[in-house]
Amino acid sequence: MSENIYVGVDLGGTAIKVGICNAEGQLLHTFEGPTGTQDGVETVIDNIEKYVRQIVEDSPYTWDQLAGVGAGVAGFTNIKEGIIILAPNIGFRDVPIRAILENRLNKPVRIDNDANVAALGEAWSGAGRGIDNCVCYTLGTGVGGGIIINGKIYQGYAGLAGELGHISVVPDLEAIQCGCGKMGCLETVSSATGIIRMATDAVARGDRTTLSLVEQITAKDVFDAAKAGDEVALRIVGRAAFYLGKSMAAFAAVLNPEVFIIGGGVSKAGDILFDEVRRVFAQLTPAPLQTGVSIIPAQLGNDAGIVGAAGLLLRS
Amino acid sequence: MSENIYVGVDLGGTAIKVGICNAEGQLLHTFEGPTGTQDGVETVIDNIEKYVRQIVEDSPYTWDQLAGVGAGVAGFTNIKEGIIILAPNIGFRDVPIRAILENRLNKPVRIDNDANVAALGEAWSGAGRGIDNCVCYTLGTGVGGGIIINGKIYQGYAGLAGELGHISVVPDLEAIQCGCGKMGCLETVSSATGIIRMATDAVARGDRTTLSLVEQITAKDVFDAAKAGDEVALRIVGRAAFYLGKSMAAFAAVLNPEVFIIGGGVSKAGDILFDEVRRVFAQLTPAPLQTGVSIIPAQLGNDAGIVGAAGLLLRS
Repeated sequence: MSENIYVGVDLGGTAIKVGICNAEGQLLHTFEGPTGTQDGVETVIDNIEKYVRQIVEDSPYTWDQLAGVGAGVAGFTNIKEGIIILAPNIGFRDVPIRAILENRLNKPVRIDNDANVAALGEAWSGAGRGIDNCVCYTLGTGVGGGIIINGKIYQGYAGLAGELGHISVVPDLEAIQCGCGKMGCLETVSSATGIIRMATDAVARGDRTTLSLVEQITAKDVFDAAKAGDEVALRIVGRAAFYLGKSMAAFAAVLNPEVFIIGGGVSKAGDILFDEVRRVFAQLTPAPLQTGVSIIPAQLGNDAGIVGAAGLLLRS
Repeated sequence: MSENIYVGVDLGGTAIKVGICNAEGQLLHTFEGPTGTQDGVETVIDNIEKYVRQIVEDSPYTWDQLAGVGAGVAGFTNIKEGIIILAPNIGFRDVPIRAILENRLNKPVRIDNDANVAALGEAWSGAGRGIDNCVCYTLGTGVGGGIIINGKIYQGYAGLAGELGHISVVPDLEAIQCGCGKMGCLETVSSATGIIRMATDAVARGDRTTLSLVEQITAKDVFDAAKAGDEVALRIVGRAAFYLGKSMAAFAAVLNPEVFIIGGGVSKAGDILFDEVRRVFAQLTPAPLQTGVSIIPAQLGNDAGIVGAAGLLLRS
């Protein structure tokens, strides 16, 4: 076995997940350990090094076969310089992580933010496998995104491309303010947070819905109620789907991607979400820009981050 | 003089314009002759060949220095195969222009549509010189566009990327149908056609405006009236600018380009248009996505098409 392997690191606030991929993006081994955020930056870096060495040692591969290491992190990153500018959930600020890890591991290291890394994972060996141009949404607490062009993450001028959650899609009269400060961003309606807010508002104003019986409404509660035919829940899901489809119509006219991939917790709603997104996309997109374009669920689930991180060296 | 030269061809319904560029995108010589559309496809092709040979012959360069020829045309093109699928103003349908010209000229030939070619021209040696990532609008009869990523035209999955005029930006209640069949496209408000329509509507419904004295309103009439303080004209220009700025806010969140370049006849309105576009962009775009991003007028005017065509071989 002399093939190259790539280690991906998913750097979360609680756990660091690491995985070994081959050059085709197959995830061969995984390992998970505590981040140690409470013990400070130095400990977190020690742990990253330890887990990377550990997983290779425990695998049938040698250290020499390790071609490089990639890491994804929630936060702002300077990709060119390899610096984590701000990652609140692991307590990093201005940490030159690439230089530190390259020095310790003596291997090439790449970093990127979690949304881009997840997009690359899906494009490399998930729902977008074999497809050069795709747009990936991650619908979680917020709406993240990544754009893959010619098989690689597209960064834009300042590394901020793919901020799909901050396109303004809600008309002024119905818009609320987004965490970014602007009005009517996609994130205000199509994230789990947005869905929960719409449901909580409906209950508060006395709409007749089974959701009024739920103590602490989750996005899953809303989807379950919608599947059971609750009209208020159906309207909320319809709204989340409408604006998602509307944003895709906009991106189709600019980027003309071959597939839109939807991942993250909200995507688990399944057909009730996807059918409506596809209907709205078809309604709002000029015909030639729809031809051959598909909207599909992500495939890798939580592994997308590890796989995409492993792919950074090859695909960035 | 042994440097390479590149000939660009701007294939219009009335005239074929050709130009010689060096490898830096400097336009060194130009030549223009009738297209001969009325005499059929064969004549048009004969004329292209003739003018390309002519301009090189009349220049201080030799045929051997000619590294390649590029052509831009208004219409649908299959760039990979080098086929003009449909170009109504020169009467071309399914013409494998690249193969024909390569055979006749014995030089590499590239083609693309006029909006992409103009964008490349501006990016290569116009307003976007030295900038890797830019989005270029051409505001004319319609709204065309081109996206330059890493210095090259971005084509998308089916070669349809950059259709900036067909992003839906007008809210439903105020939207009219676009030529593409969809409602509320940017093209319905920010093209010369859209501006003229808004002005004609205003006059028809009896709004108090100096435009009611104009026989056949042009976009320039509307801009002139706005500059003279006509409130109706100001409102129309404001609307064209608002939706243009709104579309840029959307593209900034996806593409994070370094510059937006605005060209075409409507861009000649100058500050009255640009000031408002910049104000709206600043208002609707999250702060980090605005940092360092500028909105500037195109520089090459009608030469953008020739220069961009000349650059196709180097930049596509």
